[in-house]
Amino acid sequence: MDTALHLEGPLTADELRQLDAYWRAANYLTVGQIYLLDNPLLREPLRPEHVKPRLLGHWGTSPGLNLLYTHLNRVIVRRDLNAIFVAGPGHGGPALVANTWLEGTYSELYHSIGRDEAGMARLFRQFSFPGGIPSHVAPEVPGSIHEGGELGYALSHAYGAAFDNPDLLVACVIGDGEAETGPLAGSWLSNVFLNPARDGAVLPILHLNGYKIANPTVLDRIGPDDLHELLRGYGHQPYVVEGDDPTTVHQRLAATLDRAVEEIAAIQRRARSGGVVERPRWPMIVLRTPKGWTGPKQVDGKQVEGTYRAHQVPVAQVRDNPAHLAELERWLRSYHPEELFDTTGAPVAELTALPPTGNRRMSANPVANGGRLLRDLTLPDFHEYAVQVPSPGTPAAGATGVLGPWVRDVISANPQTFRLFGPDEVASNRLDAAFEVTDRTFVGATTTDDDHLGPDGRVMEVLSEHLCQGWLEGYLLTGRHGIFTSYEAFIHIVDSMVNQHAKWLKTTRGIPWRQPVASLNYLLSSHVWRQDHNGFSHQDPGFIDHVVNKKAEVVRVYLPPDGNTLLSTMDHCLRSRNYINVVVAGKQPAPSWLTMDEAVQHCRRGLGIWEWASSDAGSEPDVVLACAGDVPTLETLAAADLLRQHLPDLRVRVVNVVDLMRLQPSSEHPHGLPDSEFDTIFTRDKPIIFAYHGYPWLIHRLTYRRANHGNLHVRGYKEEGTTTTPFDMVMLNDLDRFHLVVDVIDRVPGLGSRAAHLRQQMVDT
Amino acid sequence: MDTALHLEGPLTADELRQLDAYWRAANYLTVGQIYLLDNPLLREPLRPEHVKPRLLGHWGTSPGLNLLYTHLNRVIVRRDLNAIFVAGPGHGGPALVANTWLEGTYSELYHSIGRDEAGMARLFRQFSFPGGIPSHVAPEVPGSIHEGGELGYALSHAYGAAFDNPDLLVACVIGDGEAETGPLAGSWLSNVFLNPARDGAVLPILHLNGYKIANPTVLDRIGPDDLHELLRGYGHQPYVVEGDDPTTVHQRLAATLDRAVEEIAAIQRRARSGGVVERPRWPMIVLRTPKGWTGPKQVDGKQVEGTYRAHQVPVAQVRDNPAHLAELERWLRSYHPEELFDTTGAPVAELTALPPTGNRRMSANPVANGGRLLRDLTLPDFHEYAVQVPSPGTPAAGATGVLGPWVRDVISANPQTFRLFGPDEVASNRLDAAFEVTDRTFVGATTTDDDHLGPDGRVMEVLSEHLCQGWLEGYLLTGRHGIFTSYEAFIHIVDSMVNQHAKWLKTTRGIPWRQPVASLNYLLSSHVWRQDHNGFSHQDPGFIDHVVNKKAEVVRVYLPPDGNTLLSTMDHCLRSRNYINVVVAGKQPAPSWLTMDEAVQHCRRGLGIWEWASSDAGSEPDVVLACAGDVPTLETLAAADLLRQHLPDLRVRVVNVVDLMRLQPSSEHPHGLPDSEFDTIFTRDKPIIFAYHGYPWLIHRLTYRRANHGNLHVRGYKEEGTTTTPFDMVMLNDLDRFHLVVDVIDRVPGLGSRAAHLRQQMVDT
Ligand SMILES: Cc1ncc(C[n+]2csc(CCOP(=O)(O)OP(=O)(O)O)c2C)c(N)n1
Ligand SMILES: Cc1ncc(C[n+]2csc(CCOP(=O)(O)OP(=O)(O)O)c2C)c(N)n1
Ligand SMILES: [Mg+2]
Ligand SMILES: [Mg+2]
Repeated sequence: MDTALHLEGPLTADELRQLDAYWRAANYLTVGQIYLLDNPLLREPLRPEHVKPRLLGHWGTSPGLNLLYTHLNRVIVRRDLNAIFVAGPGHGGPALVANTWLEGTYSELYHSIGRDEAGMARLFRQFSFPGGIPSHVAPEVPGSIHEGGELGYALSHAYGAAFDNPDLLVACVIGDGEAETGPLAGSWLSNVFLNPARDGAVLPILHLNGYKIANPTVLDRIGPDDLHELLRGYGHQPYVVEGDDPTTVHQRLAATLDRAVEEIAAIQRRARSGGVVERPRWPMIVLRTPKGWTGPKQVDGKQVEGTYRAHQVPVAQVRDNPAHLAELERWLRSYHPEELFDTTGAPVAELTALPPTGNRRMSANPVANGGRLLRDLTLPDFHEYAVQVPSPGTPAAGATGVLGPWVRDVISANPQTFRLFGPDEVASNRLDAAFEVTDRTFVGATTTDDDHLGPDGRVMEVLSEHLCQGWLEGYLLTGRHGIFTSYEAFIHIVDSMVNQHAKWLKTTRGIPWRQPVASLNYLLSSHVWRQDHNGFSHQDPGFIDHVVNKKAEVVRVYLPPDGNTLLSTMDHCLRSRNYINVVVAGKQPAPSWLTMDEAVQHCRRGLGIWEWASSDAGSEPDVVLACAGDVPTLETLAAADLLRQHLPDLRVRVVNVVDLMRLQPSSEHPHGLPDSEFDTIFTRDKPIIFAYHGYPWLIHRLTYRRANHGNLHVRGYKEEGTTTTPFDMVMLNDLDRFHLVVDVIDRVPGLGSRAAHLRQQMVDT
Repeated sequence: MDTALHLEGPLTADELRQLDAYWRAANYLTVGQIYLLDNPLLREPLRPEHVKPRLLGHWGTSPGLNLLYTHLNRVIVRRDLNAIFVAGPGHGGPALVANTWLEGTYSELYHSIGRDEAGMARLFRQFSFPGGIPSHVAPEVPGSIHEGGELGYALSHAYGAAFDNPDLLVACVIGDGEAETGPLAGSWLSNVFLNPARDGAVLPILHLNGYKIANPTVLDRIGPDDLHELLRGYGHQPYVVEGDDPTTVHQRLAATLDRAVEEIAAIQRRARSGGVVERPRWPMIVLRTPKGWTGPKQVDGKQVEGTYRAHQVPVAQVRDNPAHLAELERWLRSYHPEELFDTTGAPVAELTALPPTGNRRMSANPVANGGRLLRDLTLPDFHEYAVQVPSPGTPAAGATGVLGPWVRDVISANPQTFRLFGPDEVASNRLDAAFEVTDRTFVGATTTDDDHLGPDGRVMEVLSEHLCQGWLEGYLLTGRHGIFTSYEAFIHIVDSMVNQHAKWLKTTRGIPWRQPVASLNYLLSSHVWRQDHNGFSHQDPGFIDHVVNKKAEVVRVYLPPDGNTLLSTMDHCLRSRNYINVVVAGKQPAPSWLTMDEAVQHCRRGLGIWEWASSDAGSEPDVVLACAGDVPTLETLAAADLLRQHLPDLRVRVVNVVDLMRLQPSSEHPHGLPDSEFDTIFTRDKPIIFAYHGYPWLIHRLTYRRANHGNLHVRGYKEEGTTTTPFDMVMLNDLDRFHLVVDVIDRVPGLGSRAAHLRQQMVDT
């Protein structure tokens, strides 16, 4: 590199040389991971057997990620920044792994992968290799809070990490392909919710390498002017760094990063020196460099660098094709490994001098291993929020409305570590007590007609389930707590995000250095049975089914039947770690069944016989009426009542289920009830009529291995009904009290003829 | 209204009066639907009993929708436009119903709701009333292709409708709250894919009423300058219509609509008079008017009009609160119903003269009842694309690669009515033969390095599953055909959209005037078993489970085990109507099992015994090895082979399942196999070892009522494995041939000791 030319920018010739060497080292290590089985330092000429038999991985995005990581290291050191790196194009896994190895973190956490030749060989071999590491920025990668496999969530994760982390800088790389996804496109305006006084900063970096897999990207092709307007429309001040000459780009990127972090610091100083909190125009960077930069320019006569062909493995069939082998060797040697690594294979001193040390390394920042920073919440004693229940059935209360004041006090007691998230439904879901102590987060001018809106609000409302989910995930993974409240039906919007989070949790359980994080808590209300005016499009209880497909150790599902059980349940959820807790509760006035002491005991058991509603007087019943969910519980109790009136001799046992996972065998789920207990409660041979909140099949699935499964009859939602009364809804789905009574009559042996009149009466109702 | 003032705009005083009267009539009818049980024309003073006991519905968005609908009527008539209306804020159902009633369409389709006083009374009563109509722009609403219950898909539906409909104008209203959702935010740049020469036009209208449910909207609060830049960044020319004085707004809106449709016409003329097709700067409109405009200004001393309080029912407790009753009456009378409806209750002549007539009415446009326009596809004979299979197992072929040439020819044969959609994975999913005859759709400048990119492309690739889904839905609902191909795991991204489409299909089945539309076809590849380099984050077969929760009459699931069965399956899917077809197929080279004749017969049966792989020679077997999915089929056949070698006396029957719904009883699903047939194939008492592509539970669920269910043992994906070899994947999930053999040994009575050696050998492998 001709250094004479490069003194126009902020970098001295030495700095420039050092940065470029570091970048070359990261690129070399990236290519090595994709290609090499052996001969990691190219001490001998490259031979076919040095190359992996199957070539997997994504080169295209990697040089850009490496460039950004390298330059961020420089500014972190210069300003002693507290920063983390979110790689939207998470398929650039080898780039991030390369950097963490260069920083030393990788070897500290994975002892067998030392910073020497043997370690490098293992580093290369394990990548995308059976028994090795995934090709993405998976939880195995130090410093990662974002796997980036399913594209679209980088920016929402970044904001989630920045909230309530005033000193943190989250550098967030966004693929120009990724930017086409709905969730990413909807994430830019997160800056309306970021308080420069209280929160950290996010530096979005649009990685405009022009291509995705086989197509150019939309943001590349709309042209620079439209792109500029778009990014300004998002409220940013965009700085473009463009080029394909490394030296020029180094200088420009260094200058731009300096400027961006200075502007961020200035914004924060202004906001923190008091006065009005306004939404600033935050800087952001557009990095327009070739896809697969520094890789093979052409292969077999076709342009590769700077095109979609660079996306994955730019030179294939290397073992069989000598020209390709030569091309790979030329490519690897173009980084001059002999200058970058010493005789032991360790990075030379010039390289190790570049990145920050200790916890300042982005790969070692404790923020990115949030469990290390996690503190228990200060939880108010939920007993004090109890509904007084003089007798089962009174008073009428909406469960979420009962919970509201407790949530309010959770917010007050944990002003920096707990937030409530929702798509503009917190009040509609009756958690409005929260607004007695806090606002809805909003940074900017407000009007007198606004309802509790302000920059310090702890309630995050935005009409985007994706954003609520992404923010909360980022917030949890960096060591904090939260609840996401949503309409039950629309939570399916984030099905795929939940998948990814569940996968993250499952994987981190097997990574010793990853500390447990707070659980992801869903409070779903406005549920399937109470869509009185929204109708069919708002009815879907299937999120539970979706979640139950995930690993048992990760998921929990609760259906508290009233306010007191909801209080006890949520207290439990907020104390838990590493789970996905799904809580479904009603918001409409409905009977209260249990005193707080009873509720606590009931929740501790997870399911239990309600003696006061049963008529089996401790003996073996003729039939078990089981229920889960507030509406099914109401109908079941009404059915039990009808049976008591009309068939007083019938011994009915009422069982309520709060913790759905109790139904599974203990071998299948940690909450599973042992068979002996299950049999005692549900009997081994009596009919069970189970009134369930959701799709009936789930109950069969969960109880499948139980002795009495053959006698189980489940009623639930079967996609009937639309805009109608709550009672009509249960009627249309055969879940109403009369249907349940008929089910009992039809299933209790010998009852048929005795109860014929009652049956007819029920059918006629 | 003082008409003197209003002659500055394009509207004459007469036109202005007429438009305003029409708008008032629509608003009156909207309020009537929300509130009135009786006294629809206010012939007598309003009394409590005239008011509905429960007040449901959304007023806030309705006056804006009514205003736009009214003004669009004017331009449609003036220019004889072919237009439809997509209401993003679909909760404004009563507004759309009001307009369709004014146009006469409603009464034509629902005879009991005449355009007279009795009809109006019924119109009012049925709204959001038990047994009545939903509060959203559901399928029951004439002219609707978009229910708008789950917010976010208006604009993608609008574009889907416009593709290949060169004369169509789709007016698409977008709620400013809706605009916060990821899917909507990601839809704006759909204009990069709209060819002005070949496609129709979309006119986006951002309904900036400032609020969503309880919060102001982000797009309102970022301020007009940022908003302007944002919309220009999306490639639009935004025109703002702002105000709260009706006359001024009428004039401005009329002028702006005239200008917008003129610009659209000019763009189309330019593009269609030949020459290069460029992406034009399409006009769009920002309507900034108060939420709940013309409704009560204040209620109980609190501002309502222009605030979030206007979102639903602005004056509540009307029956009990005389002041509220008076306010409602004042509000209703402010529209002067006596001027709008004649003595019979019909709209006066001045009103009926305004809208277009016949099929030009947006509510009667056949495009919005797409089945009326639907034509069968011209399908090439798939037999001609068959893989020659000399003997089961050869040759190796990737199923989707076999399908590719047929899809190519479907594209060629149906140049205006079929499109292929995918998130940049069409080639990666091996359907690249399509590019022999067409391009990827892209409107704008291309480079020599682009791979088959052009304005006339029939393959729509964008890195947004939401956009693919929304476009395809819009395309299908307006009478065309398509396939959506995606990675299996990431199709969960559109779970909630699939829900809504399934609900739409279920509901339309019960609406006599809705004609069947083409099925929504998913071709899912890069499936759970072949994530060799992407690993855990790319593994999820749960979309099938999600879909199976929907109404049986709407869903179909196919797992073709090889190329020929895939050909036959897709041919079937493209001929079907009103379904959601989910097809999961492999893309990696894998054995071909069936000749085309066998494949056709096998697909016709849906499931069947593979004689050539079985050793029960037509007699009762000792064990049934069942399989569904390409990888499970391969392992099952290998297991059968091992058994034949090592336990030659064992009578093994191999059953392959292509059509998963065949497993259900015929009472549960139209494809369900009668019990007698099921029992013949699966036996009534022999062990069944079922190797399944997805989560094992689904197979239990589907076969739950079958006689032999107790002997069914299912292997499938249990969330194990990550970046690894295909064989390691099946091993980790106990689905490999050796596990299957062990399962057989453990379950066939009496085999245990005889096969002890073989068992040990299998376990050791
Ligand atoms: C939601 C989703 N859809 C599809 C894919 C498949 N996919 C993997 S990488 C990629 C292209 C990404 O392009 P870009 O964001 O520009 O990244 P880069 O160019 O930096 O590689 C696609 C479509 C995915 N990972 N996630
Ligand atoms: C995806 C989704 N999340 C939440 C809701 C609940 N919801 C119904 S209306 C509404 C506000 C809509 O605001 P806007 O789009 O501005 O419509 P308008 O102001 O015209 O009523 C919300 C959040 C929904 N319908 N869909
Ligand atoms: Mg890119
Ligand atoms: Mg609005």
